[in-house]
Amino acid sequence: MTMHSATLAMNEAMEARRAAGENVLHLGFGEAGLPVPESVAKVLATAAPLNSYGSVAGSNEARSAAAGWFSRRGHETEASQIIFAPGSKALLFGLLSVLDGDLVLPCPSWVSYAAQADLVGKAVINVPIPQESGGIPDPALLEAALESAIRDGRKPGAILLTIPDNPTGTVADAGHVEAICRTAAKYDLAIISDEIYAELSYDSAAPTPLSVAPDRTIVTSGLSKSMALGGWRIGFARVPKTDWGSELMQQLIGVGSEIWSSLAAPMQAVAAHVLSEPLDVTEHIRRARFLHSTVGNAVYAEFIGAGALCRRPTAGFYLYPDFEPVRPRLAVKGIQTGPQLVQRLLDCYGVGVLDGTAFGDDESNLRARVATSLLYGSTIDERWRSLHSDDPIELPWIAKELAYLHGSLRDLVRGTNEA
Amino acid sequence: MTMHSATLAMNEAMEARRAAGENVLHLGFGEAGLPVPESVAKVLATAAPLNSYGSVAGSNEARSAAAGWFSRRGHETEASQIIFAPGSKALLFGLLSVLDGDLVLPCPSWVSYAAQADLVGKAVINVPIPQESGGIPDPALLEAALESAIRDGRKPGAILLTIPDNPTGTVADAGHVEAICRTAAKYDLAIISDEIYAELSYDSAAPTPLSVAPDRTIVTSGLSKSMALGGWRIGFARVPKTDWGSELMQQLIGVGSEIWSSLAAPMQAVAAHVLSEPLDVTEHIRRARFLHSTVGNAVYAEFIGAGALCRRPTAGFYLYPDFEPVRPRLAVKGIQTGPQLVQRLLDCYGVGVLDGTAFGDDESNLRARVATSLLYGSTIDERWRSLHSDDPIELPWIAKELAYLHGSLRDLVRGTNEA
Repeated sequence: MTMHSATLAMNEAMEARRAAGENVLHLGFGEAGLPVPESVAKVLATAAPLNSYGSVAGSNEARSAAAGWFSRRGHETEASQIIFAPGSKALLFGLLSVLDGDLVLPCPSWVSYAAQADLVGKAVINVPIPQESGGIPDPALLEAALESAIRDGRKPGAILLTIPDNPTGTVADAGHVEAICRTAAKYDLAIISDEIYAELSYDSAAPTPLSVAPDRTIVTSGLSKSMALGGWRIGFARVPKTDWGSELMQQLIGVGSEIWSSLAAPMQAVAAHVLSEPLDVTEHIRRARFLHSTVGNAVYAEFIGAGALCRRPTAGFYLYPDFEPVRPRLAVKGIQTGPQLVQRLLDCYGVGVLDGTAFGDDESNLRARVATSLLYGSTIDERWRSLHSDDPIELPWIAKELAYLHGSLRDLVRGTNEA
Repeated sequence: MTMHSATLAMNEAMEARRAAGENVLHLGFGEAGLPVPESVAKVLATAAPLNSYGSVAGSNEARSAAAGWFSRRGHETEASQIIFAPGSKALLFGLLSVLDGDLVLPCPSWVSYAAQADLVGKAVINVPIPQESGGIPDPALLEAALESAIRDGRKPGAILLTIPDNPTGTVADAGHVEAICRTAAKYDLAIISDEIYAELSYDSAAPTPLSVAPDRTIVTSGLSKSMALGGWRIGFARVPKTDWGSELMQQLIGVGSEIWSSLAAPMQAVAAHVLSEPLDVTEHIRRARFLHSTVGNAVYAEFIGAGALCRRPTAGFYLYPDFEPVRPRLAVKGIQTGPQLVQRLLDCYGVGVLDGTAFGDDESNLRARVATSLLYGSTIDERWRSLHSDDPIELPWIAKELAYLHGSLRDLVRGTNEA
């Protein structure tokens, strides 16, 4: 709840600055920032007659399309293993509601995991992420954290991975994922793998616990990131093809039937279309991946150039810079915490980012999450041109925003005795 | 959860019979059974570019349209008092999550109230409905039930009314609603008024606690029933214009932000259109009301003719017949409970209804909920013609189903010694 309010407050501050005619650079929101492909818009339009209540898990068409989508990625799947919902967030909430035991969370991780756990009264065991990437607990620390929790009388029941990750924009190492799956097996943990950014891995397919521990892994995904359809609320999950998986499916259907009933039928038609992967859809995603990668790397270079540490982004559209190396310079300006850093970026430059505490990071760390996907233009036409450009950072609207970010970051870390 | 499975099992049995070429009369599901008006389909089609994440409570357009809709009904409302969600069920879940204390429920009442209360760990105080109508606790029994609960150390915190009602298809008496509001004030109970069938009251506007106790009443509604858009999942709620109402709104936004994020943006555009009440929409609802009333009364006559007791429907598309007067005849056939009655109707005649236990009624009562809205035709064309007919029960597809119901019910209650 608090996290939502923090985001809202930031958004409102951005709006107020914009209304006052001041400069604004919105890097605070995980919006994929791209328009809707024509074939997808057409499917929505022709789906209008679908106004009946449908089954909770989704239509046969949508479930079969999602099953095919997983099967083509090497994970044989039947339609009965798939459930749709208005957003993968709803399915994550459902999973946390029905899975037993405490939840192991990598730290930092996406804002809503901890908030959902709190909502369903589930205790959380935080484990720091490794140096190389986010989205997973450091495999070297995981077992010790579990042992310590068990010694304290706690019962770890599930572990949540985000591959690729939000907030760091990185893909976990396959060896790390394997090691975590081994530990999960040893402690009999369910693995929830949030793979909503999987299609946006820049160079090669992201690893998935489905390849290592298919019988204990539930994958959640959706069309909000790969297809930039956040406002359409299309999420889905895949449960294992085991008795336990079938039981989980029934429990998820139970929760869904009492809260959201089903994903809206026209949105299920959209999902059936997109997940059958027609050519224009795969080309749209390929171009989105290129755009996110190109702009993400350019923004990365700006933070590195300003003296911050940062993991190089390998997926999605986030960065998680750390201003620790320039702490003394910032301290002179009264900036000693993440929230102070974020406030200064907003107040002095109109640059909106989210401070690390929203992701469970420590307040004393000078870290923030930077979303790069709202840089693609302020009109649908600009966004289309960004998507179809072979050199997007040279487009005037992107170049201008990068230049503004460059100046803002240099000014932020400039010593008070420099002119 | 169990309730959902009961519905599913019934649906599956219906499907199996249909597949086997047997007669089927589906009276088991609360689907409004009408097609989508052209202007509404057009709004959905043109809303495709709305793919951005929006605010949790909904767009200004949708919230303002809903506020205007309430204001035109005599309840001055500001946009900030409105929240949208994927279905009013989600908002009811949110309300039960955030309101304190035990929940007073009329009995029988809609299947999901008790299931949701169970999901959020809220205790329920059941109070029987009055003879005249469903949807409200009998005002004469309410205070005694509260006193008894308090003596047992319980803390009643909220009361849930359904006006008009499901499962009885009736509208509560205005005097009863007033009396309940007085009792709610005396015991400081929040009033949740589920008014999703309000537009389908046959003769005059249904009473609402908003007229009597606006400061303690939260109204939930949606487009699933009046506009037959169940598969589009469009729900909304109105909170009081008080500090408590604002606090509730923030809590609902908190729950929504962690489970469903928002109603899909294209569906918000649909809501903004429908709730601004263009002429074709009001005409669609006026005709739907006439159709539901005409067919509902014809089905009512069949149950009365077969010797059942039944409240005459005054809204929506449900009946709640009681076969108590013919219990001896049914007993001869081995039917002594509601579930046995429903099973016999399904097995022998392919008539699908839901037994009263799904609504919290006692198993020994020979009661079932009958939905009349799937009688309007098996094609979109037939449903359009039903909607535009001035004499729908003479349409061949409706007449045939009524005749089949007539024969089935007469056969059900015929003595074994009659031919």
